[in-house]
Amino acid sequence: MTIEVDINSDIGEGFGAWTMGDDEAMLDVATSVNVACGFHAGDPDIMRRIALRARERGVTIGAHPGYRDLAGFGRRQITGLNANEIENLVAYQIGALCAVASLAGHKVTHVKAHGALSNAACTDTMIANAIAAAIKAVDRNLAFMVLPLTELARAAEWIGLRPINEIYADRAYQDDAQLISRSQPGAVLHDADEIAARAIRMVTEQAIITASGKTIATSVDSICVHGDTPGAVAIAMAVRTAFAAAGVTVRPFSAA
Amino acid sequence: MTIEVDINSDIGEGFGAWTMGDDEAMLDVATSVNVACGFHAGDPDIMRRIALRARERGVTIGAHPGYRDLAGFGRRQITGLNANEIENLVAYQIGALCAVASLAGHKVTHVKAHGALSNAACTDTMIANAIAAAIKAVDRNLAFMVLPLTELARAAEWIGLRPINEIYADRAYQDDAQLISRSQPGAVLHDADEIAARAIRMVTEQAIITASGKTIATSVDSICVHGDTPGAVAIAMAVRTAFAAAGVTVRPFSAA
Amino acid sequence: MTIEVDINSDIGEGFGAWTMGDDEAMLDVATSVNVACGFHAGDPDIMRRIALRARERGVTIGAHPGYRDLAGFGRRQITGLNANEIENLVAYQIGALCAVASLAGHKVTHVKAHGALSNAACTDTMIANAIAAAIKAVDRNLAFMVLPLTELARAAEWIGLRPINEIYADRAYQDDAQLISRSQPGAVLHDADEIAARAIRMVTEQAIITASGKTIATSVDSICVHGDTPGAVAIAMAVRTAFAAAGVTVRPFSAA
Amino acid sequence: MTIEVDINSDIGEGFGAWTMGDDEAMLDVATSVNVACGFHAGDPDIMRRIALRARERGVTIGAHPGYRDLAGFGRRQITGLNANEIENLVAYQIGALCAVASLAGHKVTHVKAHGALSNAACTDTMIANAIAAAIKAVDRNLAFMVLPLTELARAAEWIGLRPINEIYADRAYQDDAQLISRSQPGAVLHDADEIAARAIRMVTEQAIITASGKTIATSVDSICVHGDTPGAVAIAMAVRTAFAAAGVTVRPFSAA
Repeated sequence: MTIEVDINSDIGEGFGAWTMGDDEAMLDVATSVNVACGFHAGDPDIMRRIALRARERGVTIGAHPGYRDLAGFGRRQITGLNANEIENLVAYQIGALCAVASLAGHKVTHVKAHGALSNAACTDTMIANAIAAAIKAVDRNLAFMVLPLTELARAAEWIGLRPINEIYADRAYQDDAQLISRSQPGAVLHDADEIAARAIRMVTEQAIITASGKTIATSVDSICVHGDTPGAVAIAMAVRTAFAAAGVTVRPFSAA
Repeated sequence: MTIEVDINSDIGEGFGAWTMGDDEAMLDVATSVNVACGFHAGDPDIMRRIALRARERGVTIGAHPGYRDLAGFGRRQITGLNANEIENLVAYQIGALCAVASLAGHKVTHVKAHGALSNAACTDTMIANAIAAAIKAVDRNLAFMVLPLTELARAAEWIGLRPINEIYADRAYQDDAQLISRSQPGAVLHDADEIAARAIRMVTEQAIITASGKTIATSVDSICVHGDTPGAVAIAMAVRTAFAAAGVTVRPFSAA
Repeated sequence: MTIEVDINSDIGEGFGAWTMGDDEAMLDVATSVNVACGFHAGDPDIMRRIALRARERGVTIGAHPGYRDLAGFGRRQITGLNANEIENLVAYQIGALCAVASLAGHKVTHVKAHGALSNAACTDTMIANAIAAAIKAVDRNLAFMVLPLTELARAAEWIGLRPINEIYADRAYQDDAQLISRSQPGAVLHDADEIAARAIRMVTEQAIITASGKTIATSVDSICVHGDTPGAVAIAMAVRTAFAAAGVTVRPFSAA
Repeated sequence: MTIEVDINSDIGEGFGAWTMGDDEAMLDVATSVNVACGFHAGDPDIMRRIALRARERGVTIGAHPGYRDLAGFGRRQITGLNANEIENLVAYQIGALCAVASLAGHKVTHVKAHGALSNAACTDTMIANAIAAAIKAVDRNLAFMVLPLTELARAAEWIGLRPINEIYADRAYQDDAQLISRSQPGAVLHDADEIAARAIRMVTEQAIITASGKTIATSVDSICVHGDTPGAVAIAMAVRTAFAAAGVTVRPFSAA
């Protein structure tokens, strides 16, 4: 039996003259990329360039909508948006990427929420449902990349979107399947070998492995790797190499 | 023989807590509206509200992309954008509106460039072609609303988009078919009766009537009216009433 | 004994082509105005125009800093800013107004926090202290306009800035001296006569009068009136007229 | 006789999560830095950090105002601003930096226009005068860093501000003392030894040395070095080292 998995990465997170991470390197590591759509990062020119490079490499692209907060990179919670407002800002960003991608001859196949919007949606049913409703309204064939066992995952099922369950390669998990907050010790893993070995186990066992060693069964469709620092890029490359050595086939989820 | 014409208006030009003009009134006057897409005005919430109200009234909606310049309302020339950058910003805005409109159950059927972007495109072939190329890449069935006898009109023909030739109800024309600059005396008409009478003549004769009285043959598919001041709304209403009295049928161009 | 009071109003809350309320009318009603500084509303051109008109009328100007949130008008809570970041955004906006005012020959004499930033500071010591620290660092002679009996008022005292205690003319108070939330019935008063009579009592008695009729002693240095709707402008004018009829002298707090 | 010169560099050109160049390295190379003020780059947090680090190192800080154009990094020409609007945007940015610097215990001592605003002001008297007028209104003791023999230099003299004549270390000059456009071959010098040798000659001879070898007499108060790429940082360091070896004393212009 062949074991297959997608590797996804957030990308296109520059703005104007500013860059963030090494997009070219990550396009060689990832099989699907989540493209910033201009509200927390990204601009039309970057979006097109990413779409073009992704198409050339056979990399799947998704929209990565966030709060309107360039100054805070979409990482600050903005309270008080109602369901309609969440739907609108998510739909706007998806549509923008779809259109720009068409200039590059590529097609958007999934959506993944960014930063504080994603964090809020993990536990807030209203926000998770609004994101799902926006995706479905724009194109019901879009997949919805979610953290398993969160409100995001539940919303995908509720509305009938195809879920892509993703695991973070370099983040530690609590025994309730949620990420350990970055403010806690041990929240982020730094050893490439450990990260790769754990990722292979999570894919082959189809389970989250928590910091305490517990395994929580869940489908694992994609591994999220980061590319925002040189160290992160190196780890991401190591994960991909380790997958190959372990006989895990890396391919875009859309080829599933 | 029935004479028919579309009445179009720029709309949704608020931002956040700010409003511009009387959108509700204009949705009763116009048969197609050009919706600001967030770069010079407009935001996802306003876009959805306009799309919903337009659908309820049978009003056709189009994207109204402009330069990224909230502070200048898209009226200031920004130089140095190349063809790719123009394509990207136009496609981005069209796609954003298409997606938000889908939340309201409505569909974008045309595109009209805004302000300084439109002004530049009237005489700059590169810019006009880039706008046209963006529209076609997003959806080749979108109509392209243009000022007749400009580079915009030529670009629509060149790329094979359906052109919607529009005439400005309240603006005076030079003998070369171009608008008299707002900085010139007589550039803007203020008398509702005169405006209505001239508009009826231009529609029935299918010609631009210049300030000197010359007629220049061109198809006239739509009359642009403004709604950014109480006076402008009154004039727009008078034009619509005069059309009815003169036996000119007002209907969206897409029903043509 | 002469009874004197300042009337303050938030002003300059347009942005670019957009206006908010009737600034000219409010400059005839208020004796001090709180000028938006560009982060939630306002821009350099509006700021200068307000400063000029205020100087011509003998109206005192203050900075009205808010969160960086044009799309939300500074009314949405943005979480996660630390004390340094609050200080920086407040100082930035004060300095910007001071400099633009110098182009109009006017001088900034106070600071009042706006919207969600003010709301947070009413109960969050860290935020209130950070605002106070920023004001003092920029100019220790600036007055700090505060809601009495909140963390803002305490911070003014703590850091040694001159406090200007303000009462809202059209808002109902709880028995703990805090504003009744806008989401509650009766939170906003609409009857001009009632508003004026209550304001006169609060000034003459130097006390907050709560919705239940309780009086809470506090110095009352200024009455805040709104001008964002035609109805609000009319109420503000009625308050000023009623003060005159009641023998309450209206003058800028800085003349105190 | 001691030969002395200032080395200046544009700095603080990140925004939010984005960085641009190596600010820390440049604070060790430069004796005065021009700090982006938030319109084309920079934000209140970055501005404070730069002000603090500069104070600790004895580095002089100046405001570096640009057009409001984060997406274009202030490098795109925005047309149609009148003198008042230029004054307002320049004053706003200077004041913002002055206030934020006060939080760091530092003081702004000069102003230098950025990018497209500076380019326009080199030849447009109205713009140059408006920049100068804004500086003078904010604080007549601020120095005005200018390119010699341009409208900027003339405006400094006209309005009575202290001029700081700066030369670009890595840019070639035409025989009319203007910079060769970046679009021309040879516009940018890349050899560190050549750059350093030429800079030493320009300082010691108090003259611009043109690409053709001509010398044009002008006072040279400061040498501008860039730090936006690793290569640029290395060149800047080489220039400073070469000055020391050649017996040219490097110190802030304000110590002149």
